[in-house]
Amino acid sequence: MVRPDWIAVDWGTTRLRAWAMQGNAAQDSRASDQGMGKLAPDQFEPALLDLVADWLPPAGEKPMPVIACGMVGARTGWVEADYRQVPCTPLDPHRATRPPVKDPRLLVHILPGLCQFDPPDVMRGEETQIAGFLAAHPDFHGTLCLPGTHCKWVGIRAGEVIGFHTFMTGELYALLSGQSVLRLTVGDARPEAAAFDAAVAQALAAPETVALHLFPLRAAALLQGLTPAEGAGRLSGLLIGAEIAAARALWSGRHVAVIGAPELSQLYVRGLTMAGGDAYEQDGAALVLAGLSAAATALEKT
Amino acid sequence: MVRPDWIAVDWGTTRLRAWAMQGNAAQDSRASDQGMGKLAPDQFEPALLDLVADWLPPAGEKPMPVIACGMVGARTGWVEADYRQVPCTPLDPHRATRPPVKDPRLLVHILPGLCQFDPPDVMRGEETQIAGFLAAHPDFHGTLCLPGTHCKWVGIRAGEVIGFHTFMTGELYALLSGQSVLRLTVGDARPEAAAFDAAVAQALAAPETVALHLFPLRAAALLQGLTPAEGAGRLSGLLIGAEIAAARALWSGRHVAVIGAPELSQLYVRGLTMAGGDAYEQDGAALVLAGLSAAATALEKT
Repeated sequence: MVRPDWIAVDWGTTRLRAWAMQGNAAQDSRASDQGMGKLAPDQFEPALLDLVADWLPPAGEKPMPVIACGMVGARTGWVEADYRQVPCTPLDPHRATRPPVKDPRLLVHILPGLCQFDPPDVMRGEETQIAGFLAAHPDFHGTLCLPGTHCKWVGIRAGEVIGFHTFMTGELYALLSGQSVLRLTVGDARPEAAAFDAAVAQALAAPETVALHLFPLRAAALLQGLTPAEGAGRLSGLLIGAEIAAARALWSGRHVAVIGAPELSQLYVRGLTMAGGDAYEQDGAALVLAGLSAAATALEKT
Repeated sequence: MVRPDWIAVDWGTTRLRAWAMQGNAAQDSRASDQGMGKLAPDQFEPALLDLVADWLPPAGEKPMPVIACGMVGARTGWVEADYRQVPCTPLDPHRATRPPVKDPRLLVHILPGLCQFDPPDVMRGEETQIAGFLAAHPDFHGTLCLPGTHCKWVGIRAGEVIGFHTFMTGELYALLSGQSVLRLTVGDARPEAAAFDAAVAQALAAPETVALHLFPLRAAALLQGLTPAEGAGRLSGLLIGAEIAAARALWSGRHVAVIGAPELSQLYVRGLTMAGGDAYEQDGAALVLAGLSAAATALEKT
């Protein structure tokens, strides 16, 4: 039987993940599809209990600390958690927000996100990954690139986030490949490498013309037999190439650690390398948990 | 009682429109939402009959010519109509495709679309609008810009389409404003003019950075109270500005007639003028019908 001393929670838009923790060690982990996107405010506590109820102490004992990060703290989430303004360290668990709960066995902390006013930008969840990364690489100086639905480019110096920029590339790819006229041409095919490379090169050479090359993917499928894998490669290359071109000031002349799902991270490293950048993949699987553990340690010390 | 001598049909992805014609004059018109996008091949004839059955002659008389243009002739439409390769005149009704029909009162012609191989591109429906435009302006020399879900930029010389390029700007706007994280920030608000102008200027000055400015719309709404109308103006200005920048070689130094829904056409004319182009609005409401009439006249003469 699992007896955690705290529970770590990564609660994003589409998924909820929880770990039963003893110190910094995970004894067990679970996940559900009860992401923030489908829950009304009064549905968060039941969704959490569904996943972790048997990890909780008997009623009457000291309540279980739950430390959560991610979109659970968005305005449309459980309760709106704070934003801390950059430049600042990625984490300050003492600024966590405590949502009201009915079950006395729960003591929930939602970690604050980060914000920036010029240009305006926000993050919720990635700050915890960044804290996990910095716990292992305290002297890192450069840029973190965290691709996904929304890709974050994050400047790091002396343990602080000095600025960040979000691109919608992953969401744009999903909408174009799954719901636009290109769905018949791309769909859920995996990107073909040579087509990706050619499209990245095209986007880097003339990023101002990328919008000109989207519809021709459909026409090339109709007229010239472009395959879905080629279409996926070209679309992916055009969008990632355009992002890398637009982000040039954020990576040029700096070390770039790319942190994300391996397949996607490889595409970004490939594109950045083609653009002349100094980029490498950094395993991101355990970073959220490392960041949540750093938050738990900081809270315990107080 | 309406007694047409032919029926004109504009059958797009989302709408079906029909006119009861005597010569070049419309006696009546009707529309339904039975667009190509929702119909299987065997549902086109019933959808057409639903709309025009009482315009047809008694059984046994000469069948009624129906002249149709648009996505009805796509591979996923009623039957796949031809593509004619540019450079060529916009219309050749003798290349029309006749779908098989069960009702002997119907004689349906689906007009061919246009295609181009380098870069690959296709159109179905706009060629008929272009024919309508050229019927009234046979000496036009320049570029036609037809904004909409997919915006077409069409080079015209000596009565021929010499080349064309399609942008997905309208569809991209619909997906981003209605389904992405920006839906909470933009939604179906009407673009605010000053925000549109500022975003067009930003996109024209640095079109390679447009991808950098999308997510900040969401952040500006969260942090700085950006209104939906401002968000719509900025998103619209960024996307149309990026299109105009990418299309520069297609309009620079040429007359540009912008043909489309008035509100949208005004945005394109405004953006083109800001970019230094020579653009004016051209009423497009009657052009499809004029093009279909030109096709009917050509067919009658043979």
